[in-house]
Amino acid sequence: MQNINGGVCAPKGFLANGIHCGIRKNKSKPDLALIFSCADANAAAVYTTNLAKAAPLVVTREHLKDGKARAIICNSGNANACTSNGMEVAAEMCRLVADQLDIDASDVVVASTGVIGQELPIEPIAAGLPSLVKGLGDRSIKAAEAIMTTDTKLKEIAYSFEIGSVECRIGGIAKGSGMIHPNMATMLAFLTTDCAISSEMLQKALSKDVDATFNMISVDGDTSTNDMVVILANGEAKNTPITTHGPEFDTFAQALNAVTLHLCRAIASDGEGATKLLTCEVSGADTEEAAKKVAKSVISSSLVKTAMFGADANWGRLICAVGYSGASADVSKVDISLCSAKGSVLVCKGGIGVGFPEDKAKEILLEEEVVIRIDLNSGTAHATAWGCDLTYDYVKINGSYRT
Amino acid sequence: MQNINGGVCAPKGFLANGIHCGIRKNKSKPDLALIFSCADANAAAVYTTNLAKAAPLVVTREHLKDGKARAIICNSGNANACTSNGMEVAAEMCRLVADQLDIDASDVVVASTGVIGQELPIEPIAAGLPSLVKGLGDRSIKAAEAIMTTDTKLKEIAYSFEIGSVECRIGGIAKGSGMIHPNMATMLAFLTTDCAISSEMLQKALSKDVDATFNMISVDGDTSTNDMVVILANGEAKNTPITTHGPEFDTFAQALNAVTLHLCRAIASDGEGATKLLTCEVSGADTEEAAKKVAKSVISSSLVKTAMFGADANWGRLICAVGYSGASADVSKVDISLCSAKGSVLVCKGGIGVGFPEDKAKEILLEEEVVIRIDLNSGTAHATAWGCDLTYDYVKINGSYRT
Repeated sequence: MQNINGGVCAPKGFLANGIHCGIRKNKSKPDLALIFSCADANAAAVYTTNLAKAAPLVVTREHLKDGKARAIICNSGNANACTSNGMEVAAEMCRLVADQLDIDASDVVVASTGVIGQELPIEPIAAGLPSLVKGLGDRSIKAAEAIMTTDTKLKEIAYSFEIGSVECRIGGIAKGSGMIHPNMATMLAFLTTDCAISSEMLQKALSKDVDATFNMISVDGDTSTNDMVVILANGEAKNTPITTHGPEFDTFAQALNAVTLHLCRAIASDGEGATKLLTCEVSGADTEEAAKKVAKSVISSSLVKTAMFGADANWGRLICAVGYSGASADVSKVDISLCSAKGSVLVCKGGIGVGFPEDKAKEILLEEEVVIRIDLNSGTAHATAWGCDLTYDYVKINGSYRT
Repeated sequence: MQNINGGVCAPKGFLANGIHCGIRKNKSKPDLALIFSCADANAAAVYTTNLAKAAPLVVTREHLKDGKARAIICNSGNANACTSNGMEVAAEMCRLVADQLDIDASDVVVASTGVIGQELPIEPIAAGLPSLVKGLGDRSIKAAEAIMTTDTKLKEIAYSFEIGSVECRIGGIAKGSGMIHPNMATMLAFLTTDCAISSEMLQKALSKDVDATFNMISVDGDTSTNDMVVILANGEAKNTPITTHGPEFDTFAQALNAVTLHLCRAIASDGEGATKLLTCEVSGADTEEAAKKVAKSVISSSLVKTAMFGADANWGRLICAVGYSGASADVSKVDISLCSAKGSVLVCKGGIGVGFPEDKAKEILLEEEVVIRIDLNSGTAHATAWGCDLTYDYVKINGSYRT
């Protein structure tokens, strides 16, 4: 497996583009993205579990019932959620894209991100579509830019891998960076692959992967109304199609994981106002579920997040978050270490504080990537979660998001 | 029922005091509190559900097994949690208090609040106790001061009420203001009453009340290791003792609720860095549990909290928090209003945004008390939760708590 360039356009037969069509007032910020598969493609998706689901998700879910799709249209600047005409607008977006690309409207995936509760105007989208389609090409970066909201960094990745000595590729783009606390689903991420794989196996690979990747990120504990991960697989690599479990499926799952892992870390480290990426690695749990609960509890704690912002080795907040995680754990067995590129320091052994050099801990915590290692010393299950620190800028960004 | 002065010393036969003994370096900040019942008293308590329980809670739980207590000793500045000698220190605190007051050590309730994981020195407590005991009197305020940590306001209240034409009194003190997200238990609150009531009925009244009061507050989503509410009832009002359910029990429960409600609102509005008190009133739910889940979800959302700090009527974040609350709710029926002393504005009807005057909404949200009213329009159950906004100062306070 090898890291390659090209994002969602790295796999054969995929084109992309992004433009400013006018949903956003700021003309320098692209707001409409399109990804197109030149050939028929199998598709799979996972969606937010939030009961308040945005209209585009409802439309997309309907369109993906047959496990097929050709195009993904996505706007930023408006979530198309909780408005009276949301369904019509989402359906119309699909129709307009289908017309331009000469495909069926039911083969279009539609997504939106931005403010909730304001009507999404169809006019700028209709007006912008011809130039968006005309510009389709090796432009994954343009598409990645157009789906950004408060993100400060573009999120794109691609890998090549081999299925039965045939080279395949998989790529993805994603956006964060607020309202990020996926629950059995996730924020916006669009993945493409030229690997031939059945819709059923594609869905299996995606659902399993998301549980250990996107569902393990938290920026602010808020599960969005618009979260969605979609993958299109057009088979243009011409490998023998993957239709069952086996080594080929495992290879595909591994490549998928390399892509989603990168995007997850990118989303967490670019969380609203974040100055650092926090990774919580939990080991020694009785069950994977317990390990996940502990990891996510730690990464979601406002007190842990502010302490990390202040580079303060206030480990009491870590064991506190272990204790209220909802996982059954014997806190008197818990070991905790803080690690980064500057080294590692044990701060808690058997649930009790151990003396540690504060200056060394400070040096470790001042790094841009900090790993919190928690060993529950009970079983063999483990899990990892990703998050970020809580800073003044988070408050600033979200105290005036609409204005 | 009437609001009266005196806090925990308002009920007959209760004395209190607070001093600086030296656990804290800052000599102007009292750090040791004592409440004493001159007569035997029945006692009831609820504790944190955090698996990482501080040593004083373990000791107190043992001491309250017989439903009796005479004194409450509490230090601030150190949580006496997650250290190797915590149990010995907590037990020694009880022994020292018992010696000074000539009571049994098992009749002493012990509590601590402050940094987790640092050994609590017994020396300053032992040295300070004689003057603490000597100064016992009508000093509820001194005790309330001594249990404060990052609190900016003292939290104290008392009410008088009648049981069978006999006047009784109930009072309380409490502390917030970070690591506040009680779960089936709560932060530190000490309540006293001279009402005669059996241990069993006292525990029933307290447990039921806490579910609707302290358990419905959230400042930061972190459930502490040290949360505890204790009530002592010494019967000095000489009413016919309450030993069963009935109108007298209801009157007592009502008075208890008046005290706890005040303390809850005080804790929420004085949350770390808070500029305003947020109240979320949920009605029209199918079950009380659903109403509670929705109210707590809204009040705990970082995005709601920052929007309120910015006085931004970003109601999409409210319906989003309804949707991920875990309660089963039909979001297409939800009505949402924002209210304060400046009036009320409907922002969402049937799950869909309604046009509202932004300047009016801003005016409403700039008040120090904001009520978010959510009608699920489904059943008749309701619940209320209390919280505060998320501000720059929360980040500031918690980025450098230990230093």
